[in-house]
Amino acid sequence: MGKKRNSKGINVKDLDYFFYPKSVAVIGASGKKNKIGNVIMQNMVKAGYKGKLIPVNLHEKKILGRKCFSSIKKAPKTDMAIIAIPARFVPKTIIECAKAKVKAVIIVSAGFNEVGNTAITKELFQAMQKYPEMRVLGPNCLGVLHVKQGVDTMFLPRERLGRTPDGRISFASQSGAVGSTLIDWAAMKFYGINKFISFGNALDITVTDLLEYLNKDEKTKVICLYIEGLEEGRTFLETAKKVSKTTPIVVLKGGTTEPGKKAAVSHTGSIAGEARVIKAAFKQGHMIEAKTFEHLFNFARVLSNEPLTKGKKVQIITDGGGYAVLAADTVIKSGLELARMSKKSFNKLRKVVPPHAELKEVIDLTGDATKEMYKVATQAALKDKNVDMILLIVLFPPPLLEKEVVYEIIKLHKKQKKPIIVVSASGHYTEEQKSILEKEFVPTFTFPEDAAEALKALYDYSLFRGKIKR
Amino acid sequence: MGKKRNSKGINVKDLDYFFYPKSVAVIGASGKKNKIGNVIMQNMVKAGYKGKLIPVNLHEKKILGRKCFSSIKKAPKTDMAIIAIPARFVPKTIIECAKAKVKAVIIVSAGFNEVGNTAITKELFQAMQKYPEMRVLGPNCLGVLHVKQGVDTMFLPRERLGRTPDGRISFASQSGAVGSTLIDWAAMKFYGINKFISFGNALDITVTDLLEYLNKDEKTKVICLYIEGLEEGRTFLETAKKVSKTTPIVVLKGGTTEPGKKAAVSHTGSIAGEARVIKAAFKQGHMIEAKTFEHLFNFARVLSNEPLTKGKKVQIITDGGGYAVLAADTVIKSGLELARMSKKSFNKLRKVVPPHAELKEVIDLTGDATKEMYKVATQAALKDKNVDMILLIVLFPPPLLEKEVVYEIIKLHKKQKKPIIVVSASGHYTEEQKSILEKEFVPTFTFPEDAAEALKALYDYSLFRGKIKR
Repeated sequence: MGKKRNSKGINVKDLDYFFYPKSVAVIGASGKKNKIGNVIMQNMVKAGYKGKLIPVNLHEKKILGRKCFSSIKKAPKTDMAIIAIPARFVPKTIIECAKAKVKAVIIVSAGFNEVGNTAITKELFQAMQKYPEMRVLGPNCLGVLHVKQGVDTMFLPRERLGRTPDGRISFASQSGAVGSTLIDWAAMKFYGINKFISFGNALDITVTDLLEYLNKDEKTKVICLYIEGLEEGRTFLETAKKVSKTTPIVVLKGGTTEPGKKAAVSHTGSIAGEARVIKAAFKQGHMIEAKTFEHLFNFARVLSNEPLTKGKKVQIITDGGGYAVLAADTVIKSGLELARMSKKSFNKLRKVVPPHAELKEVIDLTGDATKEMYKVATQAALKDKNVDMILLIVLFPPPLLEKEVVYEIIKLHKKQKKPIIVVSASGHYTEEQKSILEKEFVPTFTFPEDAAEALKALYDYSLFRGKIKR
Repeated sequence: MGKKRNSKGINVKDLDYFFYPKSVAVIGASGKKNKIGNVIMQNMVKAGYKGKLIPVNLHEKKILGRKCFSSIKKAPKTDMAIIAIPARFVPKTIIECAKAKVKAVIIVSAGFNEVGNTAITKELFQAMQKYPEMRVLGPNCLGVLHVKQGVDTMFLPRERLGRTPDGRISFASQSGAVGSTLIDWAAMKFYGINKFISFGNALDITVTDLLEYLNKDEKTKVICLYIEGLEEGRTFLETAKKVSKTTPIVVLKGGTTEPGKKAAVSHTGSIAGEARVIKAAFKQGHMIEAKTFEHLFNFARVLSNEPLTKGKKVQIITDGGGYAVLAADTVIKSGLELARMSKKSFNKLRKVVPPHAELKEVIDLTGDATKEMYKVATQAALKDKNVDMILLIVLFPPPLLEKEVVYEIIKLHKKQKKPIIVVSASGHYTEEQKSILEKEFVPTFTFPEDAAEALKALYDYSLFRGKIKR
């Protein structure tokens, strides 16, 4: 299923209606708290959606102070409709939407092929086939979060699930639970997300369509994917190959073991495919594989905010000896190398660092480090041609380190020609400083191993992009 | 160095003075903010230390309202002394401490063998040798955090570095920076720590001594170690072998690569040793090796709070399909197996779960899950003999799930005979619920892979302890 519609390829303007709708109807809107159709209405309002928000409900007159319509047919003309009603009513409603010239439909309702309801799924698909110009996301999905435009179709209450700030990463997830909880986690950490799409069963819009769309989207610097199965492997692969040349794709695959695959089948009704084959395909498509949830956004943050690297030499600058040891270990283990600055750089540094500071492969400013020392050391590393990437370990607890060191780092990071990332572990005081860095798009990490792996991902992608002479 | 003193073995009562001192002198105490001797005084007060706190300073009359003494000789008799003065004055002060019958000394001062100052290190060591009955921690260390007794000798301000709640894990770290920032991180996550010891250059008290001591300590259920090098490998190994039989040891090793090792030498003046040899030694000593910072406390929390397991079959219970897929993947990859409950259990469950809920290897309660469903499903898994360990995935955002589900889990966890751990990812609302679980010693994780690896560590240790028939 889905092939005929998908084969028509992607028209960017079609999908724009999902992210920049001038009007949105919520079919199944409700005045009753905790009802899905109520949560969606609430979230659109709280997201600050500026367009027209139109509740559709057979029995209610007004919802959240807005006039309610008994059907989409009777409602004013609308760009996007969100369908949140029982599965059995969905096919009929899809036809109504098409007749009402709705451009984009999100079906959040579940109860289709993912639970084996083939009859209703077929009926829905046939209804969709009749109106190929209307694009459909779902069913069995959360839809879209596009904070910049105040579009939030997720039916999870904001007090229970945070929303991310605007950013440079777009994220498409086959699983609503995985996608939304990652959004929640990213929100807590101030990771910026541009567009989030939960695409569920993908009866019309597939992950391939989303790749095409996001690649053409100027605001999206990196595409993150969570997928469990692929219906159209060949097309996906060809598209990914093309997209990777301009936009890095970081992918996390669920169902890489037999039992995991079995779980996936009953989840989004997708065929998980042979794990090894899919992994090989990722490599062929020059996608960057994330092995864990953390990798996904770790890699994406570095790839979206840092310039490509010209080599694998990492300069570690630290104020904690033990961290230098572990950071050096993890840089080496990840397949990168430690940089060693020139004598000239060391001489410059010697003038500002404490006499007992170590100036070797690792620059250990010791617990007496100040923001000035970080500044001078980072500047030296930026200038030194023996350094390709800079890994700053900034432990904030020592009393001499001014917390304003973050502003020095932000300044240096802005005009960088080399990647600069920060490791900083990590209690409440430290998290506060890290949030300032994150908001200014300086990637931060709690543990050195995560930082090293993210730099390795950047290195690999830089290699593919031809930035590095082999 | 250090051999002669260490060879006398450990007398538990000796080390008790570090954790239960009736009186503490701070040599180098200061009234000036941000001075190390001031921060330590402040922290002892803020920690709620109930014993006698005695500032020692040549020039000041009163510090924090307490009468100041010009030297330890003139101060009242004291159990413990913290030395926070420049390195060159330390040897003389050590002799004074011994003459004043101080039982336990923490030298926080740096500037000894770790920076190549062999002369002063030798002088210090010789002074210590004369008074073997006085035990010394350090130099170049942070000393001790024992929250239950209000002992906090760390010279890092509390507003910059959090302190952990009381717990069942004790943690000895060679690196002060690594140790303290992990304490900070653990504090933010409400992980309980019983005794934290930063032992630095270990001129007297070594990690082996600490193993012996913590093994005899009733409050310590698991020992965590961060080490970079070992001076007395053989003794350490023999001790670890013995200790492991009653108390699990989780160890993170810094300096496992050549460059990392080089960094380690200049850090605590220790010899890092051949990484492979040390790793083999860990295995021989039945220690549980943590590969990352996160592993260290992840493994320790499960080992300290959960019963040993009788097998490798993990029952996953979830309210999010995508999480079930990834959790199944990670359980399998970690070397464990998925459980499958009996038909009888499934029949019981069928009565309470939603009709579309999956009852297979993974129990997917779906986004309609309630606390009652979690309770019934967990009870069934506890009773079912096909289940060895229980992995609850609890996603809190769906509106139907009462947040009080945590109290059901806490109740079930208390009378458990099988390990129960929780995965829950993870924004502010979720972190709140997780903190309630952590405070009641239910191990929580943000991502399934971390949970699976921790269960594997528990499985391995259970195997060693003979709980599992091979």
